[in-house]
Amino acid sequence: MGMLYFIGLGFYSVKDISVRGKELVEGADYVFAEFYTSRLQGSTLSEIEEFLGKQVKVLSREEVEGERILLESSAKGDTVLLTAGDPMSATTHQSLRIEAMRRGIPVRIIHSSSIFTAVPGLLGLQPYKFGRTTTLARPEKDYFPTSPYDIIFNNLDQGLHTLVLLDIRTDRDYSMTATEGLRLLSRMEGKIGKGILTREREIAVVARAGSEEPFLWYGTLKEGMETDFGPPLHSVVVPGGCHFMEKEMLEMFRSHSTKTINISLKM
Amino acid sequence: MGMLYFIGLGFYSVKDISVRGKELVEGADYVFAEFYTSRLQGSTLSEIEEFLGKQVKVLSREEVEGERILLESSAKGDTVLLTAGDPMSATTHQSLRIEAMRRGIPVRIIHSSSIFTAVPGLLGLQPYKFGRTTTLARPEKDYFPTSPYDIIFNNLDQGLHTLVLLDIRTDRDYSMTATEGLRLLSRMEGKIGKGILTREREIAVVARAGSEEPFLWYGTLKEGMETDFGPPLHSVVVPGGCHFMEKEMLEMFRSHSTKTINISLKM
Repeated sequence: MGMLYFIGLGFYSVKDISVRGKELVEGADYVFAEFYTSRLQGSTLSEIEEFLGKQVKVLSREEVEGERILLESSAKGDTVLLTAGDPMSATTHQSLRIEAMRRGIPVRIIHSSSIFTAVPGLLGLQPYKFGRTTTLARPEKDYFPTSPYDIIFNNLDQGLHTLVLLDIRTDRDYSMTATEGLRLLSRMEGKIGKGILTREREIAVVARAGSEEPFLWYGTLKEGMETDFGPPLHSVVVPGGCHFMEKEMLEMFRSHSTKTINISLKM
Repeated sequence: MGMLYFIGLGFYSVKDISVRGKELVEGADYVFAEFYTSRLQGSTLSEIEEFLGKQVKVLSREEVEGERILLESSAKGDTVLLTAGDPMSATTHQSLRIEAMRRGIPVRIIHSSSIFTAVPGLLGLQPYKFGRTTTLARPEKDYFPTSPYDIIFNNLDQGLHTLVLLDIRTDRDYSMTATEGLRLLSRMEGKIGKGILTREREIAVVARAGSEEPFLWYGTLKEGMETDFGPPLHSVVVPGGCHFMEKEMLEMFRSHSTKTINISLKM
């Protein structure tokens, strides 16, 4: 019986994969990838295939959730599922893993860097000071969930930072910009009005985390709603109470200081 | 002027480093490492040096905080600081980064896998369902902080999971075991008595995350206080309200089921 490997690619380019992960892909019989929960911004499929020296079959949501391919293959030979970010952050992968364990298929997880720890670190914010993470969904006609507002409210109430992830729809090639995200937060303020996300609220944005030049930005919600942060991926952080060193770092990314923008571009 | 690279080694073995990180180390003029905030369990310094093909100077706390070596070197040539886990999670590294930015030294951060995302993922718990992380410090004579209890209380109150990291003192070659940690939590219950960490409270433990056979365990606080989880590193999670799939995964690690222990050992 084969082994089922969940291998994280990291979150920006194919070279973010761990050395161990690359070795295991090279030795595998079947290599699949799942890119609908998230995908690498910095590498195309053919770059990934060339770098890993393997043909990679990209699975649709149905194929991953249907499990057939993966489980058949792992009964025949060592099988890899490549995913962006840490491989176990997505529920789909967990349900697949449960099913594999039930069938007695040995599973191994190869971790990788993740936006969950990278974004706080890039901004100089301590991981211990974050509350619950939230995600902004692209609003549909009658669909405008305001739960992110409540999560940010609870975190601020405890003096904690909030990591705000932005909607990704790889099938529609859509990823929400920080500008859109901040406008949504402002709309939620208008709707709920507890006064936590006013135009003066100071916000941090990371664009292109993991790239050679991530853009690190700090300014008011108002400024952010009028800023073009460039190509994806974007993430937003609503800082809570800051340790002086956290504040010192954020100030270096203050929007209206070109000096610090230059520095941030060099990050 | 040289570049200052903060490169994450991942959290278990030297092969957890990203391919990009390894390439940058190979091309660097000076390679330093900081192992007092945390270190790799699965690789010795000489294994790291052999694998990276570089001499690695391990810096003391004073040397890193004094900044002299790093900043001098990065003025002369490309300099790497290797760290376990994601390189920006430790405050010491952030203060060094701030100082480098002030002096106009270009800084680049190479992310890696981190216990902060790996432990939730290994246990099948959704990263969105975690509240604030806490750390258990080794109690000294007159020093028994109970802030972790309050953090766990607040998280449970919101239905959130808590990642509980355990004290590491690399200088004294001490890392707290989950057994010790759970006993501390039980002592805090005795002291504060809000009834959240009774002997019946169900707890999850991960031992040797990132190794070929991480040990994944789920059971009551009472059982955990009597369990030997083997070699370090250990981490504890206090689950809050669980989605049915999260519960399903945790049940697979239930202490008294040898079947699932075998599976967990294969993870």
